[in-house]
Amino acid sequence: MSKGLLDGIVVLDLTRVLAGPYCGMLLADMGATVYKIEQPKKGDDSRAFGPFVNGESAYYMNLNRNKLGVTLNLKTAEGKAVFIEMVKKADVVIENYRPGTMEKLGLGYEDLKKINPGIVYGCVSGFGHYGPYSQRAGYDIIGQAMGGLMSTTGWPGGAPTRTGTAMGDVLGGLGCTIGVLAAVVNKIKTGEGQKVDVSLVDSVVSSLEIITQIYLATGRIPEKIGNRYESAYPYDSFKAKDGDVIIACGNDKLYKLLTEVMEQPELLSDERFATNALRVKNHAELKPLIEVWSSQHTIDEVVESLLAVGVPSSPINTIDRVVKDPHIAVAREMFVEVEHPIAGKTTLTGDHIKFSDKKAEIRTPAPTLGQHNFDVYEKFVGLSEAVINEYIEKGVF
Amino acid sequence: MSKGLLDGIVVLDLTRVLAGPYCGMLLADMGATVYKIEQPKKGDDSRAFGPFVNGESAYYMNLNRNKLGVTLNLKTAEGKAVFIEMVKKADVVIENYRPGTMEKLGLGYEDLKKINPGIVYGCVSGFGHYGPYSQRAGYDIIGQAMGGLMSTTGWPGGAPTRTGTAMGDVLGGLGCTIGVLAAVVNKIKTGEGQKVDVSLVDSVVSSLEIITQIYLATGRIPEKIGNRYESAYPYDSFKAKDGDVIIACGNDKLYKLLTEVMEQPELLSDERFATNALRVKNHAELKPLIEVWSSQHTIDEVVESLLAVGVPSSPINTIDRVVKDPHIAVAREMFVEVEHPIAGKTTLTGDHIKFSDKKAEIRTPAPTLGQHNFDVYEKFVGLSEAVINEYIEKGVF
Repeated sequence: MSKGLLDGIVVLDLTRVLAGPYCGMLLADMGATVYKIEQPKKGDDSRAFGPFVNGESAYYMNLNRNKLGVTLNLKTAEGKAVFIEMVKKADVVIENYRPGTMEKLGLGYEDLKKINPGIVYGCVSGFGHYGPYSQRAGYDIIGQAMGGLMSTTGWPGGAPTRTGTAMGDVLGGLGCTIGVLAAVVNKIKTGEGQKVDVSLVDSVVSSLEIITQIYLATGRIPEKIGNRYESAYPYDSFKAKDGDVIIACGNDKLYKLLTEVMEQPELLSDERFATNALRVKNHAELKPLIEVWSSQHTIDEVVESLLAVGVPSSPINTIDRVVKDPHIAVAREMFVEVEHPIAGKTTLTGDHIKFSDKKAEIRTPAPTLGQHNFDVYEKFVGLSEAVINEYIEKGVF
Repeated sequence: MSKGLLDGIVVLDLTRVLAGPYCGMLLADMGATVYKIEQPKKGDDSRAFGPFVNGESAYYMNLNRNKLGVTLNLKTAEGKAVFIEMVKKADVVIENYRPGTMEKLGLGYEDLKKINPGIVYGCVSGFGHYGPYSQRAGYDIIGQAMGGLMSTTGWPGGAPTRTGTAMGDVLGGLGCTIGVLAAVVNKIKTGEGQKVDVSLVDSVVSSLEIITQIYLATGRIPEKIGNRYESAYPYDSFKAKDGDVIIACGNDKLYKLLTEVMEQPELLSDERFATNALRVKNHAELKPLIEVWSSQHTIDEVVESLLAVGVPSSPINTIDRVVKDPHIAVAREMFVEVEHPIAGKTTLTGDHIKFSDKKAEIRTPAPTLGQHNFDVYEKFVGLSEAVINEYIEKGVF
């Protein structure tokens, strides 16, 4: 097993639940040494979130693999002193508290910079560390709603719809990871640290790219348009005998191939559908005509006949199909079995970033609460066993 | 204006349309020198995608700001030779061709590694560079469908629904950026290069995190559940007088505060809603009871009264509201005006990753096709003006 691209980078991970832990997970999977620092007794809130395997949270186990787990009470003087010792030896701190929390503890970026001028401080929050809404709680659904994503997801005339995963959190975690890595590049070159401030709302806004440009360039407010897109047609879901199927013809050549597979040359010569722009305009007339064909075939028949001639097409996988797919699960190793000391054999989501040489990998299962206290506090911080035991007793660890 | 965290990092950006250009944009915004290399005469396909401002594509202008634009025909011997000279001086190459395309040109990672062993080669594709589906075309909708996201987005009994933005492309671009930056960290330390292979499908699968864990840990297939979540209630959208509003009570304390604002203590004492787990189970009974209250008030009234006591709540912003929001647009600078030589004043989406010191910024507008040919080919590659003119004539540039 390779050591990973980030071998030697030391990360103090104070984050809880999803956005922050996802960032820490990506860094750990790529080889960074990530110390997951949790509240004594209780730990990360997500330890209490289902589903559970032998009483262990699958939610927590997935997002915290490859991390070393310690407990630390940052509200005690001793706890702060230990944290400061760790900051002196670290490259990166990440946290996703409400903005101001770390400052109140005397451990904000400005404080930590004095201790270690090279520290990279990454934070994820609902609305970011400055601006009029910065003190509002910002959960995933609020990021999706405030950032505009829900208003463009769903069906004409229907309700604004959230994306099925906690996409605001995921985008926040990805953005924080990018910012932290760019700051690490700069730190290696210049020795300087940096604060990286990522909000869920900003991250959602950035993801809207083209959607927002429609409004900014033309004044038209983009709305919910179901599964079709603003810029190409037929590029949508269509009824098949046994469910819905995706057909994606982004240009004239692919549309011509589609009409050939459907054996409906009249759809190619029809003036209403002569160009992509016309097909977008007249999509409501074209869709049922394509469904005359697609609804006579199964999903697999449609996909196979179209892929055979090079027209992009796919099933709409449910989660059980994703997990069993020979390409996704087997060839791309997107699901990986890990032996956890309590949960036993569990399957985690693999890494989506594939490297040629120093691979991102799942090396160790997520820690149990405080599992590495003795190891880390002895070897990394330099405390004696007696002091560690005393601190456990006193609730510092 | 600061130079950015990635000052000095040289990127050759061969990408087109969305996923790849978004990666190049993030690197350029953070200060890398990004050479956008386009096909002579035609350029990036997205130059032809609307909306347009004075004939210039807003789609293209948004995703390619801060880049230097050159044209280069990689199918000619001269074009290949020029590209190889550029690779010798570059840190990073990014591309989003169909897997195998660069290899056919003799310019795949294995070829480029021989020329520059430190080169970081990032690629984004529908299904990735290996595995049984790697040769399938993979557009955004196919990533969203195959990766399982559509099957969990939408309403019970309704159709599987895509996310309103090209989320598969965005996630692919973010993943590629993370991989490239981690590889740059390793390159600075060791001198070694790396291939970074990111697929839209894998990126979507990674974003599903907890959703997939439900199936893996319990065997239950997660389905479309509208705007509510699997793990908390009331954490959903609710009817207000003038539309829908978000209320997000992730724990008992917040639920208690909600019942106080609603002046409905009976909802707190009701056994059906005594714990978060029970509220999740009985969400269908609780929702209409909350809407008895929320539907008597406007969105703004609900949000204000709940935020006043610390209960997370927000409107569901349409794009026009996002663009005008004082926090998002003004304080967080998520929309930035730029002067483009042809389009004039245009508003682009700002950076969502906020740095304390070396800020990510929009420094220059997107290039017109081949705008920097003379500059780049003279100063970066070292060609004479006569050769550049000859190559333009011959269609190499």
